Amino acid sequence: MQNFVYHNTTKIIFGSDTINQIGDLTAPVAKKVLYLYGKGSIKKNGIYDKTISSLRSAGINFVEYSGVKANPLLSHTRKGIEIARAEGVEAIVAVGGGSVIDEGKAIAAGVVADHDVWSFYDGSGAEVKSALPILTVLTMSATGTEMNGGTVITNEETNQKIGIISPALQPVVSILDPTALFSVPPDQTAYGAVDAITHLLESYFTKSDFYTPIQDRYAEGIIKTITEITATMQTKPDDLTARSTFMWAATLAWNGLAPSGVGSWAAPNHLIGHSMSALYDTPHGASLSIALSGWLPWYAEHDERNAKQLIQLGKAVFNTESVDATIKSIREWFRSIKSPTKLADIGVDESGLVKIAENIGVNAPLWGLPYTAEFSESILRRCE
Amino acid sequence: MQNFVYHNTTKIIFGSDTINQIGDLTAPVAKKVLYLYGKGSIKKNGIYDKTISSLRSAGINFVEYSGVKANPLLSHTRKGIEIARAEGVEAIVAVGGGSVIDEGKAIAAGVVADHDVWSFYDGSGAEVKSALPILTVLTMSATGTEMNGGTVITNEETNQKIGIISPALQPVVSILDPTALFSVPPDQTAYGAVDAITHLLESYFTKSDFYTPIQDRYAEGIIKTITEITATMQTKPDDLTARSTFMWAATLAWNGLAPSGVGSWAAPNHLIGHSMSALYDTPHGASLSIALSGWLPWYAEHDERNAKQLIQLGKAVFNTESVDATIKSIREWFRSIKSPTKLADIGVDESGLVKIAENIGVNAPLWGLPYTAEFSESILRRCE
Repeated sequence: MQNFVYHNTTKIIFGSDTINQIGDLTAPVAKKVLYLYGKGSIKKNGIYDKTISSLRSAGINFVEYSGVKANPLLSHTRKGIEIARAEGVEAIVAVGGGSVIDEGKAIAAGVVADHDVWSFYDGSGAEVKSALPILTVLTMSATGTEMNGGTVITNEETNQKIGIISPALQPVVSILDPTALFSVPPDQTAYGAVDAITHLLESYFTKSDFYTPIQDRYAEGIIKTITEITATMQTKPDDLTARSTFMWAATLAWNGLAPSGVGSWAAPNHLIGHSMSALYDTPHGASLSIALSGWLPWYAEHDERNAKQLIQLGKAVFNTESVDATIKSIREWFRSIKSPTKLADIGVDESGLVKIAENIGVNAPLWGLPYTAEFSESILRRCE
Repeated sequence: MQNFVYHNTTKIIFGSDTINQIGDLTAPVAKKVLYLYGKGSIKKNGIYDKTISSLRSAGINFVEYSGVKANPLLSHTRKGIEIARAEGVEAIVAVGGGSVIDEGKAIAAGVVADHDVWSFYDGSGAEVKSALPILTVLTMSATGTEMNGGTVITNEETNQKIGIISPALQPVVSILDPTALFSVPPDQTAYGAVDAITHLLESYFTKSDFYTPIQDRYAEGIIKTITEITATMQTKPDDLTARSTFMWAATLAWNGLAPSGVGSWAAPNHLIGHSMSALYDTPHGASLSIALSGWLPWYAEHDERNAKQLIQLGKAVFNTESVDATIKSIREWFRSIKSPTKLADIGVDESGLVKIAENIGVNAPLWGLPYTAEFSESILRRCE
């Protein structure tokens, strides 16, 4: 185990019919908030009405701002910052999935900054040291942003999708109501599942300390559970047991516990996936199943330790005994839930592959990874 | 999964050579503190010098108060409250194991209360709503108190050992330096390991929701790891890898994650163990291995679901396939690390067994458990 600091201050309110607590939870924090959401799905499933009604009952003033995209855009974030400033809001209430919450965090940081918000993301050195308080009502489980200080924004002018992390961006409180997931369609359900397991796999494989049985078993237990329940969520969207289990699993997958103590680690599959999303607006989870499909066989080959890790994962999750069988099981599981495993599955051709590889090469230094365009191309060619 | 609230605000500073950060961590919290410790082992292993020096460097004034016992006493706590009030300290710095930290929490709550501190513990209804800030330097891993809001105090006048929990008692910051464990002797090492696995087993077995794979696997992974490393800590006390792994394992075992979402649950083995400690000053972990040795076979018999849980635990941790083999493995593991499995092992005879059973019967209502003296006697008679 390596030295680490763990500090996760978010209060989690978990369970059925908890959404109507948002007003009472907001009251001690702010009198006027920016109410942020996406493209309106919350108006169809009743969450908009529940949250608005709860805020009104608690006497909270709010300004609505909607239209957050699946890969949230810098331009939309900038406009949100303008509105939040003009209206003098004291907090952000983000009602949505990872994209809405991530944009909410960016707005929260941007409002109090004396420079453009993109400076926090572009690697120029600006750090988020303060932000408006963020409260979230999670409607799609995947990214874990509801219980961490991370945010990812896409700059559509430069085709960059960049993530940052700061304790100041940790939500004050997050409501995790699994009934909110009932209306998540099968494809988004799959992408959320892939995202959650990828979060665990990143540090599981790339850690600098090899002997970390607590962290390994933590990851293996959550991954195995997710592989067991995802198909149920797709065929029985209102299965409360499966949705509840997944909702907590996805939060635990990226709340800082898994990598604590494993030493330095990297997120190569996120790097690769972000470039796909930046260029082709690929759903985040879909981009990750493609990335892993190509990255895993390369990873398994380049070090004996890596092969052992693949075998350990396979034993714990898929009852397999070899590297090849583990990779085969992972790809098959992706396909079984209809998450893509190669670029052709999302309609990207040979020239697109080269563009993605080039984009990875450009962004890799920001991620601290030595991934050139050429190397990235070789990874993408291994996808099956 | 059942509804729950999870909020754990303690900042964990984990790793070798982190103890000397205590001064800088205290500075933003308080200018004058009560420096609380036990019987002086920290003067032998250098931790006293390191912490005092760090506090001095940071300009923190402190009042020393020592002599905390292994099962911390109400009388000593009351005297600490008097000193803390007279000296006007603003925070508690507790340097020690679970007992020192638990007494530190009791003092922190008692100082700001307008009634005797025992009223928080005796079930009369007084709740801890505020307390002085608590900072801890952990020197023995077992109880998990360094990352939760719990505290257990023994009233030597009434022979009651009672625990309470409050968010106000959550430490602000806890330093977990695994090198501090190098001087923990083999018996205390064993008792710490037993305590940690018992914390996980309590909600694992008594939960009201049977389908909780995330929580089950979380517990199984940590328990398996602890069973793998305890003997190493006993034979190689300065094995940093084993001590580090155990230190984090014991904290994760009782920081609120394991029972989150499992519904209602109870702590029968802690109830049983506390009565042993209250009457015979039995080390907490030793009392728990005796309790489990008698409670598990009863538990396995009284419901088919329970038997399935024992089998599941055995498969995950001991590679066993039956209830009997699992219980046998648990008892054998206790014996292998020299933790007792029956009252005779700690020199308690037949009349003592009856006294303990009666004490359990008296305290059971405080724990919400229907354990009569007669029933408790039947459990204790199953210890092997």
